[in-house]
Amino acid sequence: MESTYRLHYAPDNASLIIRLALEEMGLTYETALVDRTRNAQDSAAYRALNPNGLIPVLETPQGPIFETAAILLWLADTHRQMAPAPESADRAAFLKWLFFASNTLHADLRILFYAEKYIDAAQAEALRAGIRPRLRQHLKRLDDLAQDAPDWFNTQVPSALTVYVACMMRWMALYPAKADRSWYQLADTPYLQKILHQLEFRPATRSVIAAEGLGATPFTSPTYATPPEGSAT
Amino acid sequence: MESTYRLHYAPDNASLIIRLALEEMGLTYETALVDRTRNAQDSAAYRALNPNGLIPVLETPQGPIFETAAILLWLADTHRQMAPAPESADRAAFLKWLFFASNTLHADLRILFYAEKYIDAAQAEALRAGIRPRLRQHLKRLDDLAQDAPDWFNTQVPSALTVYVACMMRWMALYPAKADRSWYQLADTPYLQKILHQLEFRPATRSVIAAEGLGATPFTSPTYATPPEGSAT
Repeated sequence: MESTYRLHYAPDNASLIIRLALEEMGLTYETALVDRTRNAQDSAAYRALNPNGLIPVLETPQGPIFETAAILLWLADTHRQMAPAPESADRAAFLKWLFFASNTLHADLRILFYAEKYIDAAQAEALRAGIRPRLRQHLKRLDDLAQDAPDWFNTQVPSALTVYVACMMRWMALYPAKADRSWYQLADTPYLQKILHQLEFRPATRSVIAAEGLGATPFTSPTYATPPEGSAT
Repeated sequence: MESTYRLHYAPDNASLIIRLALEEMGLTYETALVDRTRNAQDSAAYRALNPNGLIPVLETPQGPIFETAAILLWLADTHRQMAPAPESADRAAFLKWLFFASNTLHADLRILFYAEKYIDAAQAEALRAGIRPRLRQHLKRLDDLAQDAPDWFNTQVPSALTVYVACMMRWMALYPAKADRSWYQLADTPYLQKILHQLEFRPATRSVIAAEGLGATPFTSPTYATPPEGSAT
């Protein structure tokens, strides 16, 4: 490929997190649309990149990487941007919250969005009802962290954790499209709110808005994507 | 503290993964029992170490770390053992599977063990029924990886991923104690089976067996822990 990186993406999918990180780091990359209307993520070609059939995949000189947080951490370490370096005294704190975002917040968010992959459809709403208070609690933990404002999670400069959390909060405000979403109120987490507000002024955010049709305020007051190509679902 | 590290643990809890890694790396550490019979993990003192009230926490010169995989990765990078280093060409592949183990296998395992934290008790068994085929699929992915036998996941030398997966497979064979566990058969994943078998010969494994009362074959044919102190639940 011509660029070092190729991002396999669908609009407003988890690939958005990686696109935002690539833009923030000023890296060049190609994109390859995964056509969700044809379930291209389940194709043999895509499964050769990620046997789990999940978006995103980032092709790199080290081969294809999947798992959003793994891609974020690898990019951050490789380019020494957006995260405390491995030898930094802040590394331990950063890693524990990055893994929390991945295996607790993101894992629970997947249940909310795809409850039918975890339980019979008849009981999916009961599962969603159990997940929502968990998500609120996870966000409260991250709001406490934002109030502490470590160097790698504050209103000044976005880190890998910032873009990760911001995109997940966007999706909590929007999805599932036909379900109750009143449980999520950005104002409940005022320190995160400030971080999301500041993130919207970044040139990187303007780039991803244009690329995926995200509207003017994709984090603080999101609307459904109207992408120039592809489909979010 | 006298040692550099203090591991807050309960027998046969996720702290076992960290104890095994510390032993494999030959590091000295203190332990502090978290008394689960008194819900000590919910105490103010413990929540000051981990606001989520989960075991383990590892106290380090960089402060307390929580999230099992974060601790594993931080220890591996700090001591340059049991994982490809950040600058290694194998790093991307290692990270994607470490995050998969954390946010997919471990996250689903938590649902199996603590379904009542996700849904009303009346529907907990329905949720467990939905989780079991997912876990089998996740293990199949890891078995495929074990068949490929990269330098950081094979029968020769255990990595951070090895000890993580081995302990989770132990728990799948044992928990929940009163539920159907016939869905889990070690022989279904023959390459993982070989890795677990080899791991049982390691001096580190003999140490953790003695410390937490795990029996002679804690991974390939586990029995409930009979720890010298504390309680697994």
